[in-house]
Amino acid sequence: MQKVEVQLGQRSYPIDINTGFTALPASLASARQVVIVSNPTVAPLYLAQVSALFSHPCHHMLIEDGEAFKTLNSFESIMSFLLEKGMSRDVLLVALGGGVIGDLTGFVAACFQRGVRFLQIPTTLLSQVDSSVGGKTAVNHPLGKNMIGAFKQPEHVVISTVTLNTLPEREFAAGMAEVVKYALLGDAQFLDWLIQHRELICQQHPETLAQMICHCCQMKADIVSRDETEQGDRALLNLGHTFGHAIEAFMGYGNWLHGEAVAVGMVMAAELSAHRGWLSEPQVNIVRSVLQSFGLPVAMPDQMQIADFLPFMKTDKKVKDGQMRFVLLPALGSAKLFADVTEAELLQVFS
Amino acid sequence: MQKVEVQLGQRSYPIDINTGFTALPASLASARQVVIVSNPTVAPLYLAQVSALFSHPCHHMLIEDGEAFKTLNSFESIMSFLLEKGMSRDVLLVALGGGVIGDLTGFVAACFQRGVRFLQIPTTLLSQVDSSVGGKTAVNHPLGKNMIGAFKQPEHVVISTVTLNTLPEREFAAGMAEVVKYALLGDAQFLDWLIQHRELICQQHPETLAQMICHCCQMKADIVSRDETEQGDRALLNLGHTFGHAIEAFMGYGNWLHGEAVAVGMVMAAELSAHRGWLSEPQVNIVRSVLQSFGLPVAMPDQMQIADFLPFMKTDKKVKDGQMRFVLLPALGSAKLFADVTEAELLQVFS
Repeated sequence: MQKVEVQLGQRSYPIDINTGFTALPASLASARQVVIVSNPTVAPLYLAQVSALFSHPCHHMLIEDGEAFKTLNSFESIMSFLLEKGMSRDVLLVALGGGVIGDLTGFVAACFQRGVRFLQIPTTLLSQVDSSVGGKTAVNHPLGKNMIGAFKQPEHVVISTVTLNTLPEREFAAGMAEVVKYALLGDAQFLDWLIQHRELICQQHPETLAQMICHCCQMKADIVSRDETEQGDRALLNLGHTFGHAIEAFMGYGNWLHGEAVAVGMVMAAELSAHRGWLSEPQVNIVRSVLQSFGLPVAMPDQMQIADFLPFMKTDKKVKDGQMRFVLLPALGSAKLFADVTEAELLQVFS
Repeated sequence: MQKVEVQLGQRSYPIDINTGFTALPASLASARQVVIVSNPTVAPLYLAQVSALFSHPCHHMLIEDGEAFKTLNSFESIMSFLLEKGMSRDVLLVALGGGVIGDLTGFVAACFQRGVRFLQIPTTLLSQVDSSVGGKTAVNHPLGKNMIGAFKQPEHVVISTVTLNTLPEREFAAGMAEVVKYALLGDAQFLDWLIQHRELICQQHPETLAQMICHCCQMKADIVSRDETEQGDRALLNLGHTFGHAIEAFMGYGNWLHGEAVAVGMVMAAELSAHRGWLSEPQVNIVRSVLQSFGLPVAMPDQMQIADFLPFMKTDKKVKDGQMRFVLLPALGSAKLFADVTEAELLQVFS
């Protein structure tokens, strides 16, 4: 088992990375009230196994699968379920699923009776390397993704690479976009490692996956420990996301996967960085080819023009004092937040 | 001006208590994006005055007046308003109104883009002495009051006793219930002071009110500083509330005012304490008479039996490991949380 500790003072917590499901610590296993939130795709595969980790019977509630259900409506349904079942402040909420289930359940855990216990069991690569670390929870609003949410740190994160076996290929690829993101924003050596281990990763070699996931969690944990509420460095994790969110929103949530949109967004961030003279054309091609080698798209959807991105970018959470802010790459393996990108520059680079 | 500082480390904030509206600190007055949330009762009286405290134009949104509108629906409406107006993470939300507006706006401030700036301007006595201090925010669910919420400390609280002039008599009385609560749970001398100053308080003598409000805020601030998230002492502030919430819920939110229900709840807590031999009958009569002298009810509604309280008590947020917990009075001016109150005892005392 590999272990990463997210250092956040009193709210520190461990991430366990295993190749199978192992026993939980007693404080979790013995919880009297447990509600597992999952979806109809994941539940038939892992709900029984996860329920068996607890010594008392668990309730479970399923939310339809997909980003379209990460809404205030689903939030309210879970709240009603908890109250109908007579759950108290002692309840342990367990998120068993991908980022949608994690974000939604985490937000419920943040708000039910002003905060209850929360255990994350992320089952997709994307949620294992990204959304399950760092406590960002949210639901979407028709006018913007993740606009309603909270910072809620889980008590524990349990990752098993076995759940990746049943993950559709396209979703595995989408997760790899976030893996590549860590390399691009802060670790050029890890980029080399990913290129070298491409075969083993695509074959889903358990130990290689565990090592890769552990490295990503460690990088994210370090960033989150320095900057829990995104006043500074944490914003770098949004590399590719300003473009990516616009693609997701324009195409309709769920049509393009988050990771796919972020992959294109990272290429666009690299192109913008090259236009500023920071990256060479061969470096931009490395970004493209590593993403492509994991089966990811590297060009914006045919239906979109750069002008279509602007309305979404202007309501991005990174907007400050009316100014759009972008994470760009001053070098390969190093990212920084810039507030000086103008509409004119975007039109020039991407038209 | 009187001032209370709520000590919460990095999240510490001041409460200013004035007899009129005075200039805000520059950091607040100069906010570029300001949204004032109020209701149709308060807005015509104070919205213009409050808007004038800011150097940039303010948006405002009105929510219907009353506990019935402290819902996830209203929460969603405000979220939509903020996004439609293009508000960013820099927005300053201002709650101008009583507890409903404060709780609702505070919860929005906790969740909009995972947390934005929040200024409280409580206009009712109840919210001035209670809900504006300590960062508890929430909305109601059909199955329970304040079941969905967050701890969100405001950046500043501005109290002006002038807003009490326009408060209906019944609401002023309801606020006095919470004032009396502070005396009962922790300050027998303050109980004497209230009895002595009854005339000046009922005449709404501005300096007397400011002094009284300041004392309550200080008591609450001290408790909140010791125990922000209600792991211990903060629960004592719920004196009378377990009974009170049941009355409010049974009678339909808004029919009995919160303070009226709490007044009866405190009498019931005193009667239970007397039954246990901790208070004398004359002491219970002091509790009754001081509440009555401020125009408050001291007996449960005719329509209710003690059995009607039980379903609500069992979903109370203080329930722990399935056990109801009550704040009782081991002595007049001293409160403690008890987990050993049974249904049988309740039926015996109140049937």
